Amino acid sequence: MNARDNLSDSLPSCKFEVPEIIFGRGMLRQVGACACRMGGKKIMLVSDKGLFNAGWVDSVMSSLLEAGLEFAYFDGITTNPKDNEVIEGLREYIRLGCDVIVGLGGGSVMDAAKAIAILVSNGGKIQDFEGHGKIIRPLPPLVLCPTTCGTGSDISQFAIITDTERHCKITIMSRCVAPDISLTDPDTLSTLPDEYVCTTAIDALSHAIEAFFSIASTSLTDVHATRALHLLTTSLVPAVRERRPQDMQKLAQASLHAGMAFSNSLLGIVHALAHPIGGLYDANHGSINAILLPEVLRFDIPAVTEKLQELSCSMGHRADGGVNALGDQIQETLESMLEACGAPRSLRSIGVRRQDLPELARRALDDICIVTSPRVAAQEDLLGILQRAY
Amino acid sequence: MNARDNLSDSLPSCKFEVPEIIFGRGMLRQVGACACRMGGKKIMLVSDKGLFNAGWVDSVMSSLLEAGLEFAYFDGITTNPKDNEVIEGLREYIRLGCDVIVGLGGGSVMDAAKAIAILVSNGGKIQDFEGHGKIIRPLPPLVLCPTTCGTGSDISQFAIITDTERHCKITIMSRCVAPDISLTDPDTLSTLPDEYVCTTAIDALSHAIEAFFSIASTSLTDVHATRALHLLTTSLVPAVRERRPQDMQKLAQASLHAGMAFSNSLLGIVHALAHPIGGLYDANHGSINAILLPEVLRFDIPAVTEKLQELSCSMGHRADGGVNALGDQIQETLESMLEACGAPRSLRSIGVRRQDLPELARRALDDICIVTSPRVAAQEDLLGILQRAY
Repeated sequence: MNARDNLSDSLPSCKFEVPEIIFGRGMLRQVGACACRMGGKKIMLVSDKGLFNAGWVDSVMSSLLEAGLEFAYFDGITTNPKDNEVIEGLREYIRLGCDVIVGLGGGSVMDAAKAIAILVSNGGKIQDFEGHGKIIRPLPPLVLCPTTCGTGSDISQFAIITDTERHCKITIMSRCVAPDISLTDPDTLSTLPDEYVCTTAIDALSHAIEAFFSIASTSLTDVHATRALHLLTTSLVPAVRERRPQDMQKLAQASLHAGMAFSNSLLGIVHALAHPIGGLYDANHGSINAILLPEVLRFDIPAVTEKLQELSCSMGHRADGGVNALGDQIQETLESMLEACGAPRSLRSIGVRRQDLPELARRALDDICIVTSPRVAAQEDLLGILQRAY
Repeated sequence: MNARDNLSDSLPSCKFEVPEIIFGRGMLRQVGACACRMGGKKIMLVSDKGLFNAGWVDSVMSSLLEAGLEFAYFDGITTNPKDNEVIEGLREYIRLGCDVIVGLGGGSVMDAAKAIAILVSNGGKIQDFEGHGKIIRPLPPLVLCPTTCGTGSDISQFAIITDTERHCKITIMSRCVAPDISLTDPDTLSTLPDEYVCTTAIDALSHAIEAFFSIASTSLTDVHATRALHLLTTSLVPAVRERRPQDMQKLAQASLHAGMAFSNSLLGIVHALAHPIGGLYDANHGSINAILLPEVLRFDIPAVTEKLQELSCSMGHRADGGVNALGDQIQETLESMLEACGAPRSLRSIGVRRQDLPELARRALDDICIVTSPRVAAQEDLLGILQRAY
């Protein structure tokens, strides 16, 4: 049996949309030209202190100046970006008369940049846009430059913001939320702290697997999901251990491919559960995914048997066995990768309280990511997954 | 050795851009909504008599009317669209006060729609825009709906127009030339005449192979090129022979994937030679490609040895052999596919004159597609290819 015989060739009705993509070492120098091409005169640059100290914010500022642009700098964003931080960013944008937003950072910075852009043109409060397709007016031009190995926010039609009153994350999904330009300079990964290499790459791994299993996946998304999986299988562990530039660059590529896949096929139970957990505990998103992924995979596999061969092949296996053997192989490969990276393996270890599990399962049912899960999950199924991952 | 070990993972500096993609049976009904979303009030619908007689033009007109849009209809386009036909289209666009162009057809209709759009906003004559990056002003919104199994014009940054004075084709390449929306309704293939199924699918096959070998190929384009090759290897011959809808739909998908690849990685010698031949003889583009492809592949293979394993794998082989065995396997698969489709196999058979070969080789050196050939070709190399294909 040839490993590609069972390629998932189906392409039912679908839409596929990705921003303009720019990728390459030294490409941060192009940010000014990109902002200029978007019609910008005064740019709001959103980033964080870590990137400022590492010198990357300076690189972008130089590029903006060289393009003859003025800019304002905003760094009031924390991990799991909060609604009040978005409001603060909005005030700065208006006060300084900006017209284009450049986001340089990880998922938190980029999601916050998106949320600021939503409020700039749509008004109201960020909670008004929770769910799918609530955004009426087009956003100001957005150029997003990822500096971690995951998130995919530079590609995606999602923004995730923490509601500080309700202690939950709200998921905003709209084609308007995708940026105009996704610009990746993999050199920025050289200064990413060790713990973020692992957790953000595992976020990309979850994106790839959930996108591939999604009921909205198509041939157009599958090619990117499987390429991301291939890149992650070969480079995640060496990148985390040795941080060689060529492996880090592969993680940046994997993040891009995974983003192209999941932005168009959406996600599943891992993310539906990770959002309420992140909202309640302010915990690291990649760590939560690492803990949930093996259990969700176990739950999903019976519903996606026809896709296991291609998945296994993309992970470097010969993929010759029957469905059970394939499932076991995938599960083992995933678990040994997570183990070798030193990823956290239990919800308890990241501070989740056992008594919160039923409420977390309930909230996951309201998350938009649950809609494309390959296997329909009731609240007790979700609770079971949480308990096994505890 | 695992078939995916040698995946071409490199992603040097690159740009990747594709239009919004809509794909699915019955999607022609969405054209009106798309044109509306582009801000259209009066649509110029460009198509041809074959599609009118088959009823597809009516479907689009109904969709436009349902969306409350006015439209003008233009069908003055022939195969290998001519500069004077473009001028005629431009006059109609201006005379009737249109604001959005919808192209429904094969490569000729879509390239003509693009050329009309170029002149609408940039003025001058179409020859002024030959080459790369000559277009200054953005085009009016373009929605392109392919109705053949090839071309990729609905995705690409290319438009190819025949210069009737110089009897040659001019290649226009610019990011501005890519449409806003690519909308494929595979049902339209049900009325495509038999001979076009074969020749347009072979055009897509050439796009996939040349995109994969191109020196500008990246991981982002390779995933689409290899998926196109997989789809074509499994469905081209049965589609040509039996025309089952599921095989035809796979050809439509393959065309889409191949278009996403080559629009971003560009092409090679097959197309660099096919353009002058098409310009001089008004011959069918897919037939020319079918004749040239085996000879160009033979010429290219020594320069792309590291990519043969992935190519062979995408064509359904186990890909276990050495470089020579892989090359032979690919060559044989390709030739037997072309043979089984009844594709023309010699330049002589399509009316090319032997005494024109040196001039055709010379003109190919000026075609923009030669730039990304994986193997540098001198005029005598090109002449050799033409002579062997004669």
